[in-house]
Amino acid sequence: MPKQKFVYFFGAGKAEGDGSMKELLGGKGAGLAEMTSIGLPVPAGFTITTEVCDLYYKNGKKYPAGLKEEVQAHVAKLEKATGKKLGDPKDPLLVSVRSGAPVSMPGMMETILNLGLTDKSVTGLAEKTGNKRFALDAYRRFIMMYGSTAMGIDREKFDDEFEKLKDEVTRKRLKVPADKKIGDTDVNAEELETLITRYKAIYKKAIKKDFPQDPSEQLWGAISAVFGSWMADKAVTYRKVEKLVGIKGTAVNIVQMVFGNKGDTSGTGVCFTRDPNSGENVFYGDYLINAQGEDVVAGIRTPLKLADFARKDPAAYKQLCDVRVKLEKHYKDMQDLEFTVEEGKLYMLQCRTGKRSPAAAFKIAVDLVEEKLITKETAVSRIKSSDIEGIFYPAIDKTQTSELKNAFLVQGIDAVPGAASGKVCFSADRAEAMAAKNESVILVRKETSPEDVGGMHAAAGILTATGGKTSHAAVVARGWGKCCIVGCEKLAIDYEKKVFTVNGVSVSEGDLITLDGSNGNVYKGALKLVMPKLPKSYEMIMKWVDEIRTVKVRTNADTPYDAAAARLRGAEGIGLCRTEHMFFDTEERILAIRRMIIADNSEDRKQALKKLLPIQTKDFEKIFKAMDGLGVTIRLIDPPLHEFVPHDKEGQQLLAKACGVPYEVVKQRVDKLHEANPMLGHRGCRLAVTYPEILDMQVTAIMTAACNMAKKGVKVFPEIMIPLVIDAKEFSMLEQRVRAVASEIIAKKAVKIQYKVGTMIETPRAAILADGIASHAEFFSFGTNDLTQMVLGMSRDDAGKFLPDYVDEHKAAVFKADPFQSLDQEGVGLLIKSAIEKARGARGDIKIGICGEHGGDPESVKFCCRIGMDYVSASPFRVPVARLAAAQAVVEAKASESVAGASGRSSARSASAGRVARKTSPAAGKPAAASRKTAASSGEGAKSAAKKAPARSGKK
Amino acid sequence: MPKQKFVYFFGAGKAEGDGSMKELLGGKGAGLAEMTSIGLPVPAGFTITTEVCDLYYKNGKKYPAGLKEEVQAHVAKLEKATGKKLGDPKDPLLVSVRSGAPVSMPGMMETILNLGLTDKSVTGLAEKTGNKRFALDAYRRFIMMYGSTAMGIDREKFDDEFEKLKDEVTRKRLKVPADKKIGDTDVNAEELETLITRYKAIYKKAIKKDFPQDPSEQLWGAISAVFGSWMADKAVTYRKVEKLVGIKGTAVNIVQMVFGNKGDTSGTGVCFTRDPNSGENVFYGDYLINAQGEDVVAGIRTPLKLADFARKDPAAYKQLCDVRVKLEKHYKDMQDLEFTVEEGKLYMLQCRTGKRSPAAAFKIAVDLVEEKLITKETAVSRIKSSDIEGIFYPAIDKTQTSELKNAFLVQGIDAVPGAASGKVCFSADRAEAMAAKNESVILVRKETSPEDVGGMHAAAGILTATGGKTSHAAVVARGWGKCCIVGCEKLAIDYEKKVFTVNGVSVSEGDLITLDGSNGNVYKGALKLVMPKLPKSYEMIMKWVDEIRTVKVRTNADTPYDAAAARLRGAEGIGLCRTEHMFFDTEERILAIRRMIIADNSEDRKQALKKLLPIQTKDFEKIFKAMDGLGVTIRLIDPPLHEFVPHDKEGQQLLAKACGVPYEVVKQRVDKLHEANPMLGHRGCRLAVTYPEILDMQVTAIMTAACNMAKKGVKVFPEIMIPLVIDAKEFSMLEQRVRAVASEIIAKKAVKIQYKVGTMIETPRAAILADGIASHAEFFSFGTNDLTQMVLGMSRDDAGKFLPDYVDEHKAAVFKADPFQSLDQEGVGLLIKSAIEKARGARGDIKIGICGEHGGDPESVKFCCRIGMDYVSASPFRVPVARLAAAQAVVEAKASESVAGASGRSSARSASAGRVARKTSPAAGKPAAASRKTAASSGEGAKSAAKKAPARSGKK
Repeated sequence: MPKQKFVYFFGAGKAEGDGSMKELLGGKGAGLAEMTSIGLPVPAGFTITTEVCDLYYKNGKKYPAGLKEEVQAHVAKLEKATGKKLGDPKDPLLVSVRSGAPVSMPGMMETILNLGLTDKSVTGLAEKTGNKRFALDAYRRFIMMYGSTAMGIDREKFDDEFEKLKDEVTRKRLKVPADKKIGDTDVNAEELETLITRYKAIYKKAIKKDFPQDPSEQLWGAISAVFGSWMADKAVTYRKVEKLVGIKGTAVNIVQMVFGNKGDTSGTGVCFTRDPNSGENVFYGDYLINAQGEDVVAGIRTPLKLADFARKDPAAYKQLCDVRVKLEKHYKDMQDLEFTVEEGKLYMLQCRTGKRSPAAAFKIAVDLVEEKLITKETAVSRIKSSDIEGIFYPAIDKTQTSELKNAFLVQGIDAVPGAASGKVCFSADRAEAMAAKNESVILVRKETSPEDVGGMHAAAGILTATGGKTSHAAVVARGWGKCCIVGCEKLAIDYEKKVFTVNGVSVSEGDLITLDGSNGNVYKGALKLVMPKLPKSYEMIMKWVDEIRTVKVRTNADTPYDAAAARLRGAEGIGLCRTEHMFFDTEERILAIRRMIIADNSEDRKQALKKLLPIQTKDFEKIFKAMDGLGVTIRLIDPPLHEFVPHDKEGQQLLAKACGVPYEVVKQRVDKLHEANPMLGHRGCRLAVTYPEILDMQVTAIMTAACNMAKKGVKVFPEIMIPLVIDAKEFSMLEQRVRAVASEIIAKKAVKIQYKVGTMIETPRAAILADGIASHAEFFSFGTNDLTQMVLGMSRDDAGKFLPDYVDEHKAAVFKADPFQSLDQEGVGLLIKSAIEKARGARGDIKIGICGEHGGDPESVKFCCRIGMDYVSASPFRVPVARLAAAQAVVEAKASESVAGASGRSSARSASAGRVARKTSPAAGKPAAASRKTAASSGEGAKSAAKKAPARSGKK
Repeated sequence: MPKQKFVYFFGAGKAEGDGSMKELLGGKGAGLAEMTSIGLPVPAGFTITTEVCDLYYKNGKKYPAGLKEEVQAHVAKLEKATGKKLGDPKDPLLVSVRSGAPVSMPGMMETILNLGLTDKSVTGLAEKTGNKRFALDAYRRFIMMYGSTAMGIDREKFDDEFEKLKDEVTRKRLKVPADKKIGDTDVNAEELETLITRYKAIYKKAIKKDFPQDPSEQLWGAISAVFGSWMADKAVTYRKVEKLVGIKGTAVNIVQMVFGNKGDTSGTGVCFTRDPNSGENVFYGDYLINAQGEDVVAGIRTPLKLADFARKDPAAYKQLCDVRVKLEKHYKDMQDLEFTVEEGKLYMLQCRTGKRSPAAAFKIAVDLVEEKLITKETAVSRIKSSDIEGIFYPAIDKTQTSELKNAFLVQGIDAVPGAASGKVCFSADRAEAMAAKNESVILVRKETSPEDVGGMHAAAGILTATGGKTSHAAVVARGWGKCCIVGCEKLAIDYEKKVFTVNGVSVSEGDLITLDGSNGNVYKGALKLVMPKLPKSYEMIMKWVDEIRTVKVRTNADTPYDAAAARLRGAEGIGLCRTEHMFFDTEERILAIRRMIIADNSEDRKQALKKLLPIQTKDFEKIFKAMDGLGVTIRLIDPPLHEFVPHDKEGQQLLAKACGVPYEVVKQRVDKLHEANPMLGHRGCRLAVTYPEILDMQVTAIMTAACNMAKKGVKVFPEIMIPLVIDAKEFSMLEQRVRAVASEIIAKKAVKIQYKVGTMIETPRAAILADGIASHAEFFSFGTNDLTQMVLGMSRDDAGKFLPDYVDEHKAAVFKADPFQSLDQEGVGLLIKSAIEKARGARGDIKIGICGEHGGDPESVKFCCRIGMDYVSASPFRVPVARLAAAQAVVEAKASESVAGASGRSSARSASAGRVARKTSPAAGKPAAASRKTAASSGEGAKSAAKKAPARSGKK
């Protein structure tokens, strides 16, 4: 085995690493190497790899053998390149030491500047620069940074000492009145010498050792501090919160110091190559004259806009503009830069892909295509699903900083993004009543149930005390793109008194609150919202998306309203129309279905169903009309019947009266419907097996509606879906019944209708026996909500108690994300993949799709594309996200194909080739994980300088 | 394609069919053919195949083309063989027409005798026999049987007419007083002629057609009647109840008549070649002189014992004895025979394997081996699991016929066989109290819960109003072999008044009732029970069983008591020790676990667990001692915590007091534990992930107990089983924790202990990812109860509402048997098989077993053997059944191997070869379904004559 390389050098136009090596060199190290290679002015330096960090922790915090020597050799190389030596009392080499993980990560050690200064070398620096004060100032900064950042001494101790000195000595010398502040620059060299002495005393007192006078000791102290910060609580917590897994560690960058604080021809700045808010192709950033990096961060002085910088120092500005052009040409994307000007000469200190607002993301991507810098495919691959969310949903205006702080009430789970303000109300009926008076309403409930749907629709936003991202409230609200916060467990709701209390604050019905669905925050009062505008570039990107993708995108829609909304967003049909939701729509409907449930014989049941028939027929007619020319998959009734009946005495008494039966009959029937595990109970096609009359009514309604619409010239393509099958025998029995009813209607109506009969694959047994079922079914739709519950043995409603541990890297770490949000590709996905193979073996032309919540999750959509599905179905508001993901799957497959082709691994991958690959190349398959990660992280990376940049919340 | 053969002839020592062709010829037809072939005196005849019946129904009740001609040709052949012609006015051929399915099936048409008699041929018969009365009697019988059995005329109409004639004419002629009965034989020829005229009038009135005078029309009428009876309600219901599926139809047997009613040298009888009660090698049966078959059935006269027959007609008896010897030699099993003697000559009419009592089954099997008629393997293959049940469980004395009839209360679901009498009580506590006074108690509950276990153990029998064969009551009772009837839905229990009412009868606490667990019947009062005696032949058979089988049999036992009981029955270790059951044992224990649950932080939880530690340690010590030298698989706590806490206010208040916390705290904690789908909730190893302290305590208890016992010289082999895993990562995290705790204890105790860490495969995800898990786990135990629920998406507790439809041949017909009783081999089984393959691929020596309820079901055990498991684990009382099934699996594999070898199909089957095959031959696999069916049905077949034979309920 060749010796592992731990250190990568860059300097004088050459670098051992490059920009693609983020995993190994960290983002900062890779950027420095790349900039060096393309001839940008970068101070020389070297990077210790993330692998060293990994080995350090694997070996009980010991460095791997050979590292010391390798670092030493690179120090020597750096000394040679710079012509200076560490600790040289004449002309010392000074370096900065910075951490740099593959993904930017707050909480880790940031920067130590001026390392290499000692009591001896500080005089060398003073002599060489002819500026004693500058040298001493650098030294005191170094002692403070090293002492606090590397050795963990409370920074305040240093700051307090500095203030004390200023007060006691400088103030006296300059005779500054007590009420006036003394600046750092007011302190003179002599005083700085005193300060240095005191700083060293602070250091010794805290560390029980003298401040190191050996630059090598300083260097190793700093390196250890960087690696140590990788496992600091703050960093660990950040990775947990951000769900960052599989990162080896941080790299350490050791770079020759350049000084922006050498006077008015020096300075430091951060900038973006384009406007990160609007995406406009204008240079954007801040510059601080005569300052070091930390001064920018500290925000002591107001920086200059770039235009002012251009006026003040046109020569330096020109160098920066050249760099801007060069970098955009090179990276073919908007960049976020850090630079320093030392006595008129520009040095680049960092460069990375710039964060941007959703609107800017679209604008920049389209512009770059028009500038012929990138292809349409690349443009599409750069858009994130959150960009689409960001331009569709209203948002809280984040500029109202103090309002946000003061009004904050509590944080729940961010179920559906967007923001909403309105009056609090606690019941669905009340919400409808208030909304009818044109009031904006926020519906606050412990949890929601199908009976609340009317009120939920009427509300501007929904807030629940329980439930997760796939609870009833979340799922329903998501379908409408309606702001929703769930699982806000601190809410104590008193329905009777119509008030909720949280963190000591009481909010009554009618009080105003504001929800921020993008982060789960709840605020008191009505905060200012900013409304989205769909930029033209959005339309352009989505046009390209549709050109690229090979997998269709349908929608889950139960109403003509939803169907039309989804079609506007590009849905190519309905993948799941849940017929049961129709039953809750009006009093008349719910009563009819309840009558049917209370019936204790087939005849009474048929009578009750007769009332539902014309209602369902009308609904289907409207849906077929809305989906003229597109397929509509209608699922027969699925939930257990107890979901339709009242469980309280009063409701049961009313029902008994309405049905003309004794209360006891209703009570007994409802009690009998109780189930220990309703998820695994009497539902789905089991209802059709037990009560075939229901199936007959529903198929009659569907086919009558289809025939009626067809006669009016609407192109109808009904697809009847039988839910929860476990077996070919069961399916085929029901399929025959469906066809018998359908044929009768078609014959009676004398119209030609193309219809399909298929099934939802939701039980593991159906997936296992997919070949048998496929020989009878014309289409499959994977119902991954239920399939996930059964494969994992986890109830979505109950998983809140333990699932967080299963997504926690430091506990069970089974899943990368909540498997109810993002498909468990390893387990459920494997089963689906094998089911598809079996199904296509039995029926080559079977149409296969997915209609669970996962159909709107980008990673899940991509997986579905890879394993060869024909379509995915997402809730109306997620349709654009699904379209985007489907296109990105194609782009990624092509990329992986070319990678695979280049490395000759294509044959090994071809076995798992999915639909995407089938259309692009027979040899492509799952894209390499590495390329995915790189793509995903290319737009990420918050960091200190980002404080200056606007957050990506659409502020403009 | 060669023309399909529909009719098989037999006669004069030659037959076209043989005894192996039951599927095609029915049991009767195959028996007649075989007896003919081996030279027994069988009247000539032919059999129309079951395939004709199948085609008849498939083609809308039309006979297949060519059948008429083929039957006609066989009639001609029969006429030639007998020298008589149908309808011949001189010497007519008369035939019997009988149905005969592959499995004997009450409810189908039975027999029409004397077919071929017409107004003309009856005179020929009279002349030929010189017995006009005999001929006329035959004719009136024929009209009656044809009219009632074939044409559906109410038989009473014929009987009434006969009685009227006797009363009006015969009584007058013979001057019999009105209070004296007139026998059939008192009616003379002239009167019979009148009767025949009247019978024909009855026929014409009912059918609107004259009684057919064309024998060919008669014959087709009878044939159609037989085929028609296949779909008669009674027959369909019988097949449904007996779960007979996949039978094509019934055959029709047309056989030359012989007459047992030709005087005192004629007669008819039924017999068994050995005593079907005791199994003794003595000839056993009944004989009726001067009678036709139907007279025996009618039971008008008391038949002779065989010994009397021997005295009365030694010549005929000798012929019968010769047949007995020949048949036993030929069939190598005890046979059940029907025969007729016509004027001193013996004719065999039927022969089939005789039903026998459980004791007789063992005795006969062992005797036949000693007589060198069969091998040990064959002997083992002939024992049924019900034979083992029959000799272990007490039974109701079935001779108390009228008591049984009068005392009958209601029928529930037969959950655990055996019988029990005792005083009714309605609570577990009361049951324990009464049992403590040595009273025999029957615990009657709506349903049982883990808290009732003490009372259930104390009771002699258990009766519940709800639940199925795998409900809590059933599962727990089965483990103890305790008589249990569940799902007795008609029971209305009033706990307050301590009374239940059923069918209008009230039964109060203290009243006596008797349960018959073999059929689910509940009786009022204490009926006489018969206690089982284990015959020596049982020990012999089980010795052979253990010699033959290759798969180990363990037991599911949670207590030292159960462990010892199972070991006595041959258990080779514990396959599942459920630790949670231990918590319910005493007040102290349940309080300790509740304290642990109420704890809201890790520290309090640890304190509570400390109290449980010594208790669990003691339990494990006793179990290890009971299982000295054998493996003990201990499952860590599995059920959701809410199963341990009180859900009523009173219980919660008591708990709050005991724990010293406010009631609200307890209530809130219990409420939080509520789950929508507890089956898929916070349970299994998810508890260990959330509360690792529980795992620590349990592993400490197990290993401390193991070390303590090892020090005392007990050979301990603990196997720690982690339940409900879904993943290798999750398992390995917990496994490491288990090993860490275990190592610490072992080090502290300084003993050498071999222990294993493995898992229960219960979730589909675990099965799908079995290879990954196997690389960490030393053993797998398939928890098929839960696995079935998840794979099917069916909750065991809720399936009662729809599962019956899924086992119904005429509804969804998905399963042959309740999948919670007998493993769903097609679905769940397929998943298990592939999981085993994956697991063995990852770890060749992984130990694999099953510990669900299926481990005690013979068909499931055989399946487990075929797919290569190392062991099965059954409840203590099912251990002998599992041992037997494991041995039979080997015998069946060998048989299938030889079949496969003979037909050259071995290579195609070898792919699915399981453990059985691996040990017997590398080429053997799943036995052919056909051979299984034949084996299964060989001992079956109840029928009219069986009325005379004792039922297999151990009556002796």
